[in-house]
Amino acid sequence: DIISYLEQKYEEEQPFREKKILVTAGPTYEYADPVRIFTNPSSGKMGFAIAEVAASFGADVTLVSGPVQLKTPPHVKRVDVTTAEEMYEAVIQRYDDMDIVIKAAAVADYKPVTVDEKKTKKDDGKTVIEMERTKDILAALGERKKHQILVGFAAESHDLEKYAKGKLERKNLDMIVANDITRTNAGFRSDTNEMILIKRNEDPIFLPLLTKKETAKEILRHVESIMQRTDK
Amino acid sequence: DIISYLEQKYEEEQPFREKKILVTAGPTYEYADPVRIFTNPSSGKMGFAIAEVAASFGADVTLVSGPVQLKTPPHVKRVDVTTAEEMYEAVIQRYDDMDIVIKAAAVADYKPVTVDEKKTKKDDGKTVIEMERTKDILAALGERKKHQILVGFAAESHDLEKYAKGKLERKNLDMIVANDITRTNAGFRSDTNEMILIKRNEDPIFLPLLTKKETAKEILRHVESIMQRTDK
Repeated sequence: DIISYLEQKYEEEQPFREKKILVTAGPTYEYADPVRIFTNPSSGKMGFAIAEVAASFGADVTLVSGPVQLKTPPHVKRVDVTTAEEMYEAVIQRYDDMDIVIKAAAVADYKPVTVDEKKTKKDDGKTVIEMERTKDILAALGERKKHQILVGFAAESHDLEKYAKGKLERKNLDMIVANDITRTNAGFRSDTNEMILIKRNEDPIFLPLLTKKETAKEILRHVESIMQRTDK
Repeated sequence: DIISYLEQKYEEEQPFREKKILVTAGPTYEYADPVRIFTNPSSGKMGFAIAEVAASFGADVTLVSGPVQLKTPPHVKRVDVTTAEEMYEAVIQRYDDMDIVIKAAAVADYKPVTVDEKKTKKDDGKTVIEMERTKDILAALGERKKHQILVGFAAESHDLEKYAKGKLERKNLDMIVANDITRTNAGFRSDTNEMILIKRNEDPIFLPLLTKKETAKEILRHVESIMQRTDK
């Protein structure tokens, strides 16, 4: 049909040829002891879909992934990390070299203050885990931004647009992909998403319910429109 | 060769024919809020391997699984759960009916005392998460045990045999599968294991480095020897 013809034509044009894209994906694990972790239910599917589609659009893709059980997409360079700290290091050291960074990972924002090297033995009572903030990777990228196009994600359970717009401004992003995690069939572990794309000084774009691969294509098309406009 | 011939012969004899086995697998998720969970790095591979092999040995297998990204093995009934509380309910309500229960799941032993329905907004400082014990499924099964053969797991970072033997006695198990999580190529997320099997009043059996499927076969052969001895 006409749509798949146009899609194929777009792909053949290799719109991201010679572009270096870094995509992050998955959760991070913050250890309290060797068998107890603080994390989130991210499967990594969204980030992996973006990496796969970006490669099919001709980009030179580096995928920095937290612990997930997914196969590396074809023609994608994969860097595996576990903790938020490791993801910070992996992303920052590659940042200057990149044209586009899409931070789809669900990085833990808190980690246990102390990490026990031995498995803590249980006792019957309650316990308390002291938590401290992890490094804010997206804010660090926003501060250091020069030529790069920087795309972030916002997963929220309420006041989605408000929080997403605030994050876009505060972290100096070019676009934010906002996701209402309370909806069914959308978000964590699901194969579909219902996203809102927000660019700077533009009206939000409400995407319909799409597969993560279709969502990835939409995100990348909008990144391309930012590239063209800013001549980045 | 002779070994694969013997293996095939054993499988053809269907040693678990007419036996009902319940296997648990995977981690559990204990939510602090919709995007923050307390869990462990279990992939579910060990439990899924046991369920698969048990079905190939002729058993009627129910697999109660926490959140994992694995396909259900052939001829296995799968019940999906998320939290320790849900796993407790799923296992207890099926227990009377079972001949054998193999608890390979890595159930979280602590959960946050309060669960926020909304995603908690970050602030800059430290925070504290109050944790309480989840229900001890294995202990509950040990207390209610009548005709069943009950097999537990112990993942330890130190004093492995000592803790495993203590758990075997305390929780009224028939066998415990002990695993040193500090070894490389063994335990969480790995495809191989180096386990110790401990039965009541018997010397520990040290298994060599095996794939999880081979480990599953060894575990089930030793379960069969308990069945034969006790005429269960």
